[in-house]
Amino acid sequence: MALARIARNGLRRSGGTIGSYTSDKDILCEGVSAYKCPLASPQNVTAGGNMSFLSSIRKVDHVSFRSRGISVTPQYQFAQAQRIVEESDSENENPRYPSLEATKPGEKPRVVVLGTGWAACRFLKGLDTRIYDVVCISPRNHMVFTPLLASTCVGTLEFRSVAEPVSQIQSALSKDPNSYFYLASCTGINKDKHEVYCETVSDGGLPHEPYKFKVAYDKLVIAAGAEPLTFGIMGVKEHAFFLREVYHAQEIRRKLLLNLMLCENPGVSEEEKERLLHCVVIGGGPTGVEFSGELSDFIIRDVRQRYTHVKNYIRVTLIEANEILSSFDVGLRQYATKHLTKCGVRLVRGVVREVHQEKIVLSDGSDVPYGLLVWSTGVGPSEFVKALNLPKSPGGRIGVDEWLRVPSVEDIFALGDCAGFLEQTGRPVLPALAQVAEREGKYLVELFNKIGKQNGGKAFSAKDIPLGDPFVYKHLGSMASVGRYKALVDLRQSKDAKGVSLAGFISWFIGALLILRVLSAGGTGFMWL
Amino acid sequence: MALARIARNGLRRSGGTIGSYTSDKDILCEGVSAYKCPLASPQNVTAGGNMSFLSSIRKVDHVSFRSRGISVTPQYQFAQAQRIVEESDSENENPRYPSLEATKPGEKPRVVVLGTGWAACRFLKGLDTRIYDVVCISPRNHMVFTPLLASTCVGTLEFRSVAEPVSQIQSALSKDPNSYFYLASCTGINKDKHEVYCETVSDGGLPHEPYKFKVAYDKLVIAAGAEPLTFGIMGVKEHAFFLREVYHAQEIRRKLLLNLMLCENPGVSEEEKERLLHCVVIGGGPTGVEFSGELSDFIIRDVRQRYTHVKNYIRVTLIEANEILSSFDVGLRQYATKHLTKCGVRLVRGVVREVHQEKIVLSDGSDVPYGLLVWSTGVGPSEFVKALNLPKSPGGRIGVDEWLRVPSVEDIFALGDCAGFLEQTGRPVLPALAQVAEREGKYLVELFNKIGKQNGGKAFSAKDIPLGDPFVYKHLGSMASVGRYKALVDLRQSKDAKGVSLAGFISWFIGALLILRVLSAGGTGFMWL
Repeated sequence: MALARIARNGLRRSGGTIGSYTSDKDILCEGVSAYKCPLASPQNVTAGGNMSFLSSIRKVDHVSFRSRGISVTPQYQFAQAQRIVEESDSENENPRYPSLEATKPGEKPRVVVLGTGWAACRFLKGLDTRIYDVVCISPRNHMVFTPLLASTCVGTLEFRSVAEPVSQIQSALSKDPNSYFYLASCTGINKDKHEVYCETVSDGGLPHEPYKFKVAYDKLVIAAGAEPLTFGIMGVKEHAFFLREVYHAQEIRRKLLLNLMLCENPGVSEEEKERLLHCVVIGGGPTGVEFSGELSDFIIRDVRQRYTHVKNYIRVTLIEANEILSSFDVGLRQYATKHLTKCGVRLVRGVVREVHQEKIVLSDGSDVPYGLLVWSTGVGPSEFVKALNLPKSPGGRIGVDEWLRVPSVEDIFALGDCAGFLEQTGRPVLPALAQVAEREGKYLVELFNKIGKQNGGKAFSAKDIPLGDPFVYKHLGSMASVGRYKALVDLRQSKDAKGVSLAGFISWFIGALLILRVLSAGGTGFMWL
Repeated sequence: MALARIARNGLRRSGGTIGSYTSDKDILCEGVSAYKCPLASPQNVTAGGNMSFLSSIRKVDHVSFRSRGISVTPQYQFAQAQRIVEESDSENENPRYPSLEATKPGEKPRVVVLGTGWAACRFLKGLDTRIYDVVCISPRNHMVFTPLLASTCVGTLEFRSVAEPVSQIQSALSKDPNSYFYLASCTGINKDKHEVYCETVSDGGLPHEPYKFKVAYDKLVIAAGAEPLTFGIMGVKEHAFFLREVYHAQEIRRKLLLNLMLCENPGVSEEEKERLLHCVVIGGGPTGVEFSGELSDFIIRDVRQRYTHVKNYIRVTLIEANEILSSFDVGLRQYATKHLTKCGVRLVRGVVREVHQEKIVLSDGSDVPYGLLVWSTGVGPSEFVKALNLPKSPGGRIGVDEWLRVPSVEDIFALGDCAGFLEQTGRPVLPALAQVAEREGKYLVELFNKIGKQNGGKAFSAKDIPLGDPFVYKHLGSMASVGRYKALVDLRQSKDAKGVSLAGFISWFIGALLILRVLSAGGTGFMWL
């Protein structure tokens, strides 16, 4: 993405925020966050559910959990325990769990935030830590600037430039005596006892693994994100790469370079070279289109010069069941199609039936051999969200009302890709976009600060506080880059509305200016057009 | 290492060489080079020897090797085969191996270089590619600027700043029609047939794995490096980190950050926190001392500010059987001891008996619990070198004469950490230093260019060409940094000679100037004081 090149200068100039040298030190990109379902199958009161999601973590030595002399949850916390005793899990009830206990009268109320994505980080950034203590729980200790991730795969941007440690976004997490960041997955929520159950992934560092603990909250903010959709297609999880995390981008880059080098080996047939260097992208949304554009840029700029022995074998195919960029204006779609084709990206209309190690099979029965397969067909509810015993929106997200509250339970809020408006609100579920998540985070943190100032921060104490205006989302527009100095900007408020749509250098330039403005305004401004 | 901070500016300024943005793209730091014995157990004619070294590579699917219609080695190459038939291995003799065949009359002679360390890269950089075609074979596609590696563990330097893709060091490898870089391990050498046997590690990308092939050489340069010495101590390989590759530094950093975060978990006992954040370094040579200095810098500068909840638990212990920096002047040793102690590094005289997952046992029976263990007790011959049926120097390296030739075999040269002078030369085996390797590479490539100009490049054709002056090593001095703006410079030519020794800011400044000079002179000047 040519745009990213400009952005990078911005990122560098904004030293001390995104892309600064000090940021780099605290980001754990691999291993720890290298599992696909960080938040494993919980229920209202359930821990240690489906652990198969954690199978990709190395060295985790499952030892049974036992007491280590940790103070138990005091009895006053169990006031409502009778009510839920029939649905409670004996393991979670085990008083020997280490815990961060409920705040006492006179102490600051504690907000527990699940997640470190756009919504969670925008919320964390704005929280008034004079009013609240904050605990953030996530298996990833950094926020990822997802719209720029495609650019890191081919080296246009550095990995460190698209990640920001959460402790730099909200310094209270590492400095305030009662605020913490826990590198852990949430495995269950007890909405009545106001507790979340967690499991640390520690790579052999703690005495008992998995290391489990519980955290009491006054307010709970669920911003745990979504998962890539695979539609149950065989082989996708095993063979395809996703593009949602920094370590995904690292894996894609590694595979691409490895294949470029393997092709040089003596005796590799023409057919094998073509397969190894066939990069297939599934899904014609903004991510798929941007990644295809980045790859063709990389081929034109670098491969032709630096891998002269194998340069004629590399090619990019983008497979989409419908039209590419279907949410964009028709003129923009045509522009993108024309531009990508001109850059050598082959656009194929097709539906994937199966994925094998070296080929995919389309629904018409044709085989597509590949060396690198990137899957970007959107996201859906995670196993964690599916298993939560909370109201759901159409599409299976956590259902919220206009104030982002989960109705029928007290003190639980949800936002970002994991949340959607309930049917009874009469509002549509918003798309899973960084822009939506950022705006929701901003709205909710302002609401929290307002409630906190009126002494509504503690558990069960905000009932009578007026919440003010509900959340209203105004779409500012969409942007997708399609290669070197070329981008699409769609400023319509919805798919069917009228408005300005731009393509080409001008829109790329507008995008670049906007990114620079956002970044120079403080690095973690988080606004994204 | 404070010195590194200055160096980094130099690295950045030298754009296009070390630390440039384009360099980053082509470096494969993990996975591919992530196995401890890249060059597995070969003999004079042996392939597929001890494959247990490759057990750490994931996804490698061992399939039996079979013909893929590759042209066979022509008969004229087998002229001397009768002579070695009794020691040959039927698998390697299999004519179905894909191969890079011997050069024909009229073609440029082919130099095969094993390795991408200091010696190999200095040689590659200087080779006259108008005279020679060059093939480099290594499981690592980049050179590592080893003296700065310690600085990357704590974020003082970026990883990309200390690595340089080999194709940027010698562009012919990716551009000349008959020059190649193969990402592979050498598994055997046939000195009579002038062939090397190789095995690609491909992570599932090639049709038959391990993918084996052979390469014919006119001249062979062995610069395959050495391996960390573990003295057969139980548990070292399983639990300790080494510090020789970029991915080692990445692992150390990941572990350090992970432990810092794990300590925050509710319920972790004081004792466990102390163990998790106890960083133990074994070996008081320059690497061990520099890493200890870097760590204490990191603690003083960053941990105290950014991990305030756990800052009081972190500490560094350096364990050495004798004196630290034993090859340095006594005044410098005292200075280093005093300085490290002042920075909070605990110096312990001891010998390690066993290493367990969470503690080491010293020979006096005492236990030392640790959270991070770094092992830097020097290097010794690799399994590859041990298994080679070639003359050996005292200490078990490949034995060479004064011109770095392996005597008794034609057209094989060895240099760097894997080579040492034969006893009959009357010269001592040189220390395993970057400085030595770089000087040997420079000497040998000049010799090669001279031989090539006199038409001695082809196999068996350099017998009557005068070689000129033998290699003479002149030690320019040693340097080790001990922390922020503090370094030791020992300008004596040998341990017992007299000369200038400096410590403190002045020597740090001299070191910084020298690094800047080297880097600004072209990035890959490779000289190191």
